[in-house]
Amino acid sequence: IKQKKELVSLKTGYLKIQSEKTKEKKRIKRNEAHLWDLENSLKRANLRVIGLKEEVEKEIGVESLFKGIITENFPNLEKDINIQVQEGYRTPSRFNPKKTTSRHLIIKLPKVKDKERILKAAREKKQITYNGAPIHLAADFSVETLQARREWHDIFKVLKEKVLS
Amino acid sequence: IKQKKELVSLKTGYLKIQSEKTKEKKRIKRNEAHLWDLENSLKRANLRVIGLKEEVEKEIGVESLFKGIITENFPNLEKDINIQVQEGYRTPSRFNPKKTTSRHLIIKLPKVKDKERILKAAREKKQITYNGAPIHLAADFSVETLQARREWHDIFKVLKEKVLS
Amino acid sequence: IKQKKELVSLKTGYLKIQSEKTKEKKRIKRNEAHLWDLENSLKRANLRVIGLKEEVEKEIGVESLFKGIITENFPNLEKDINIQVQEGYRTPSRFNPKKTTSRHLIIKLPKVKDKERILKAAREKKQITYNGAPIHLAADFSVETLQARREWHDIFKVLKEKVLS
Repeated sequence: IKQKKELVSLKTGYLKIQSEKTKEKKRIKRNEAHLWDLENSLKRANLRVIGLKEEVEKEIGVESLFKGIITENFPNLEKDINIQVQEGYRTPSRFNPKKTTSRHLIIKLPKVKDKERILKAAREKKQITYNGAPIHLAADFSVETLQARREWHDIFKVLKEKVLS
Repeated sequence: IKQKKELVSLKTGYLKIQSEKTKEKKRIKRNEAHLWDLENSLKRANLRVIGLKEEVEKEIGVESLFKGIITENFPNLEKDINIQVQEGYRTPSRFNPKKTTSRHLIIKLPKVKDKERILKAAREKKQITYNGAPIHLAADFSVETLQARREWHDIFKVLKEKVLS
Repeated sequence: IKQKKELVSLKTGYLKIQSEKTKEKKRIKRNEAHLWDLENSLKRANLRVIGLKEEVEKEIGVESLFKGIITENFPNLEKDINIQVQEGYRTPSRFNPKKTTSRHLIIKLPKVKDKERILKAAREKKQITYNGAPIHLAADFSVETLQARREWHDIFKVLKEKVLS
């Protein structure tokens, strides 16, 4: 009889842990989403430059490089855009584990509006270049957001194929 | 006897999980508080404008709108305050689930000091307006901080009533 | 026999919780590291001034104080560095629980590059002063990063002693 009682109390304890676990998981998930939001909001004024040779910014500085990109591709934005750069750095390697491609250059602008105008102009233009060589301009998101986007993209692709076939 | 041994080992395991759980909960709570601190520190240079009609900033831009508010209410601050706006956006709807009111406009200033001076001047002035219509200026905090403040406010109210009755 | 079955199912449940716990712990740890990264990236443009008397910035303002430090110690940087200060505040007391020392003054600069140039110049100079009294300039990291550094430093020290003895 004593063993039976113990079994029942253990089972009750087990069920309690199980239900607390579910709550805790939700809390961790919510905090995680909050963290990604914060990171994305921190990156709102960032411009991601893809395809630049490594070290190209070392000689002339990020600000001159950025000015060069604007002049070469968007001469009519040149007077309006704040050329000041708050910060420029190459993406840490965790983003590009394969070292065959050059790391992206992140440029932090003082105004979110300027980033948006540049990206809009870039979408309208067919080809962006720096010193004649093709580059890409993109928004900067957290790795998690990019991963989620990629997964959504894959899901959409499968759905589309299923619908169209 | 074998069953008895198993019961004892299960009970030990259960107690171990229970104590680890308490530690984990504390860790999650600490990280959560850290997250809110970070969000609040990100919002330190933000000004929240409440009561503006939706879309009013679309035509003239956030910077002109902000300049208009300063000129209309704090003409003596006009020369001192940096009119530049780093970013302006409407609050996401999660903050105002009821769509009957217009969403708040968040203005990110380049200097925390400027925000503080504007809020101080706003507290001293009886009524803030934009184009004659009443608006409110407030600091920008994380949803969690606002929620905690509201709860504290309720607790204080109850305490006050108890003390005074 | 019924009791035996119950025991087996409890044991299975227990093992499942155990393995989920390990996953959850990893997730919390990863989020924690992410949080510290975010905080450190937020602090990248911050300069920590150590050894200033409390309240010294109250009279002349943080910007004049900062300008004074540059003029007194790095006159040749004066023309190049952006003297603007985005924000200045004393470290919260959780960092310095012992109130015997003055709290550090954190100065947020508009450009990360400027902070780096000042710190480089400070490392090259033997003694930094403000109004003749010695002060220190340092980078600003999250409390957790500083704690980790201190622990690593202690480990290195012990290793060094063992190797050299």
